[in-house]
Amino acid sequence: MRHLFARTALPPNVARRPGHRRVRTYAAAGVDRRRTSRALAALLANVGYRAPATSGRPVSLPGHYAGLIRIGRETIAVTTDTVGTKSILAETLGRWEEIGVDAVAVNVNDLASVGARPAGLVDVISCRRADPDVFEQIGRGIYRGLRESRCSLLGGETAIVPELVQGVDVGGTAIGFFPEGRRPVTGARIRRTDVLLGIPSTGLHANGLTLARRIVGASKRRLRARRPGSSRSVGEELLTASRIYVAASEALADQSGTTGFAHISGGGVRNLLRLHPGVQFVLDRWPRPFGLFQWLADTGGVSLEELYQTFNMGIGFVVAVRPSFEAEALRRLWRAGYPDTLVVGHVAPGEGVTMPHFDLTYRSYS
Amino acid sequence: MRHLFARTALPPNVARRPGHRRVRTYAAAGVDRRRTSRALAALLANVGYRAPATSGRPVSLPGHYAGLIRIGRETIAVTTDTVGTKSILAETLGRWEEIGVDAVAVNVNDLASVGARPAGLVDVISCRRADPDVFEQIGRGIYRGLRESRCSLLGGETAIVPELVQGVDVGGTAIGFFPEGRRPVTGARIRRTDVLLGIPSTGLHANGLTLARRIVGASKRRLRARRPGSSRSVGEELLTASRIYVAASEALADQSGTTGFAHISGGGVRNLLRLHPGVQFVLDRWPRPFGLFQWLADTGGVSLEELYQTFNMGIGFVVAVRPSFEAEALRRLWRAGYPDTLVVGHVAPGEGVTMPHFDLTYRSYS
Repeated sequence: MRHLFARTALPPNVARRPGHRRVRTYAAAGVDRRRTSRALAALLANVGYRAPATSGRPVSLPGHYAGLIRIGRETIAVTTDTVGTKSILAETLGRWEEIGVDAVAVNVNDLASVGARPAGLVDVISCRRADPDVFEQIGRGIYRGLRESRCSLLGGETAIVPELVQGVDVGGTAIGFFPEGRRPVTGARIRRTDVLLGIPSTGLHANGLTLARRIVGASKRRLRARRPGSSRSVGEELLTASRIYVAASEALADQSGTTGFAHISGGGVRNLLRLHPGVQFVLDRWPRPFGLFQWLADTGGVSLEELYQTFNMGIGFVVAVRPSFEAEALRRLWRAGYPDTLVVGHVAPGEGVTMPHFDLTYRSYS
Repeated sequence: MRHLFARTALPPNVARRPGHRRVRTYAAAGVDRRRTSRALAALLANVGYRAPATSGRPVSLPGHYAGLIRIGRETIAVTTDTVGTKSILAETLGRWEEIGVDAVAVNVNDLASVGARPAGLVDVISCRRADPDVFEQIGRGIYRGLRESRCSLLGGETAIVPELVQGVDVGGTAIGFFPEGRRPVTGARIRRTDVLLGIPSTGLHANGLTLARRIVGASKRRLRARRPGSSRSVGEELLTASRIYVAASEALADQSGTTGFAHISGGGVRNLLRLHPGVQFVLDRWPRPFGLFQWLADTGGVSLEELYQTFNMGIGFVVAVRPSFEAEALRRLWRAGYPDTLVVGHVAPGEGVTMPHFDLTYRSYS
């Protein structure tokens, strides 16, 4: 749960659906959401110190993907996130490179969401014990993620804390900037006629893994099996490294026709609510459940409402553009390495995120 | 263990000392230091991507307290660290405000060590469950730390991950900058005649807690007892929040007579080795073991060598200055809130950190 940015990382309850056995709520799994909300509120009630201007001037962007601060003549964006429980899956499968990529991706994709160019990352690995093979794979993954994001490694911290951590907790913090007069892309300029483009994900990325693991079960055997229609095991599908959207943001952030970016991370389509409060995001062309997502829904008895607010459901990054810029934006995304970009919806008068073909509406982000 | 900055967070083995019962090695406690070193090497062999100059230019400062990157017209310093196992002590005692202060202090004191002014912090809390009272206290502590550092909170991440974390793991990442033409203070200008000033700590700060907890034992009863000569319980003494040295760095970083800063964190006096390779740091006036430190040494049967490379031994921050600047530096530190600053040693020809009155020499940082 990202505070200040007001983002929840908690998988929502899995709704009961008749005819399915595997029905569980996250509350039953030991996490009390109301207590968690109260705890977050207690933290936030006390924590928010704002320094005098001689220490830099924070740029107010509540609820957004990154914190911004004006330092001298530059605006710096900062974001922090972890891979979360995806590392438990990596441990079960004994494959860690994807976790390294994700540690970069979860952070640089958040920078991309405000139009910041990634500059540097510090990684943090807290673990029960340091396994050379695991660390080598994580290192290789971090390198891959950094190279794709054109982001330098500035340092890192590895803590061997067997009394605190079971397994391996992997995260990082990234800083970015706005080159040559670029302005942050915040969604504030979104209008009720804008078009929403969606760039496909490579799977679940690093969100919804707790729910997915509960649905699949933790056994290696089940993770090594294939679902109908897939050439890879379910475990491999779940572990697939996140797609990185930095090049998409870079291709569009300087264009006046671009009005918003949203990284579809924890919270699913509700992430769009972070961009602009006074409009309706109509997702009438977002993909229906398919492939792994459909299989998880069927196997776990997950309602559509839960599905679209837990998983990215096939789209990892959304771009809001002016209608007149749509064709040029798609061309630029094609050239930047995203030829598979789709139109997923549009902005309209009203409020919330709606999926009319499912009769679904989401009104709040967290 | 901070990689790239090449810093170890592992408590070193506790050497056997005749006549004491409580003798343990960290290896025996489940951490294999050789394996950990191999793992770190494996991570570092793969991880170090450096982006093209259009993404900012990292400033080479290997082994130092912070990563530096030139972004546009500013140089940004980044550091990341956690409170580590001190949170286990907090849990036992049910007191969390100090942990919040420490989450800020471990980071801003590292920024202070390169002369960077703290600008913003993001905090990361990973925990088994979110307790409103715990979060409120941590929030209050973070606020205190930020206010004293004049550093804004830019965001944070709270992950409720009962499958990954036992208790509460608290850390953060801080960014800083160099106002109005200030140059980073790296130690590179240190000369063989410089004087070493030491600013007292408020106790163990957030380092050496694993060893201290093993010495004291985990029982509440032992933590609630007092050692001879103290008005507070051992638990309270151990939990005391870190002192923050930002104002010391700010008072001296712009002065040409200031040549180096060292935050005495994990690694104890060996931290001085991070400043300059070709000189000897002679700590002939560093305090002898006293108070809590002496009591831990006696109770745990800890050798002097281990003591001074595990705990800060009463000095939390060291400043190297030109001899001609010593009096003015002490005056400035007095005015900045550090009237208790001592001369702890001097720089001399040679190598390593030496404590002549104990016949001790440390030759490597990690």
